[in-house]
Amino acid sequence: MKKEILDYNSRHADEFISAGSLSPNPARKIAVLTCMDARLDPAKLTGLAEGDAHVIRNAGGRASEDAIRSLIISHELMGTDQWFIIHHTDCGMENFDKETMEDLLARKYEKDNREIDWLAIADAREGVLEDIRKIREHPLVSNRISIFGFLYHMSTGLLEEIV
Amino acid sequence: MKKEILDYNSRHADEFISAGSLSPNPARKIAVLTCMDARLDPAKLTGLAEGDAHVIRNAGGRASEDAIRSLIISHELMGTDQWFIIHHTDCGMENFDKETMEDLLARKYEKDNREIDWLAIADAREGVLEDIRKIREHPLVSNRISIFGFLYHMSTGLLEEIV
Repeated sequence: MKKEILDYNSRHADEFISAGSLSPNPARKIAVLTCMDARLDPAKLTGLAEGDAHVIRNAGGRASEDAIRSLIISHELMGTDQWFIIHHTDCGMENFDKETMEDLLARKYEKDNREIDWLAIADAREGVLEDIRKIREHPLVSNRISIFGFLYHMSTGLLEEIV
Repeated sequence: MKKEILDYNSRHADEFISAGSLSPNPARKIAVLTCMDARLDPAKLTGLAEGDAHVIRNAGGRASEDAIRSLIISHELMGTDQWFIIHHTDCGMENFDKETMEDLLARKYEKDNREIDWLAIADAREGVLEDIRKIREHPLVSNRISIFGFLYHMSTGLLEEIV
């Protein structure tokens, strides 16, 4: 698989127009936080193109401390002021809970993993609201930033505005 | 900007073929960890398509605890076994250090932020090596996973294999 990717990348480079013409500061001053789900292409569903927006992704599109680190850097050093939090239906993070994950890993690795918050999602809409609250209440997040919350519907391709 | 995105998304949904045909488990068993940089489109530079790979992104493409949370979920619950860590040249994370960020935030928010590791990058290649080591040494990361490290060159579009 590594060879396939490198072969593809070499063809990509042949047709490549240098990204040097684009600013590292997102042109539309947007940052998107969404799930790592393989079926999601944030650019395709939002119309945001290269150079437009920072894209932060993790399991669930959760407002983890690390996602908030990235958002703060995005705003403070690179000027984004509109943040879009996009979770989605049929998310793998709804299929397990903390105990399931802890048991699975404890059996396999014989290591204590109880200090890790796996950030599973119990309810899709509540998950978005919870993450918006967590970002909004963070002491290092400027109140001049607009924060929007969406649920992307995997069956229709539509973004539902949550908040 | 929110309206533009929702308008675009509504046209996207009109032409949408349901993602229901794709498995939530990445078809190529790949997870990519890369930077949030607006100029990077991981699909375009690797040839990975929707359904192929989990995509985790944060400021720098760093192996933060949260990135490792996502990678572990990706492997344990969704079967990925090849992980690609892709940093890039001309990364904003090379333009500051911990002290710069701490001073900037302390002046602006009058909050202590010294407990946050901003994960700035001092050297691009060393950053990749450091993150590969951090992932490899994590007690909950299976040694059956192949982990590859790359530096993407913004000026040429080429992936350079680091490890």
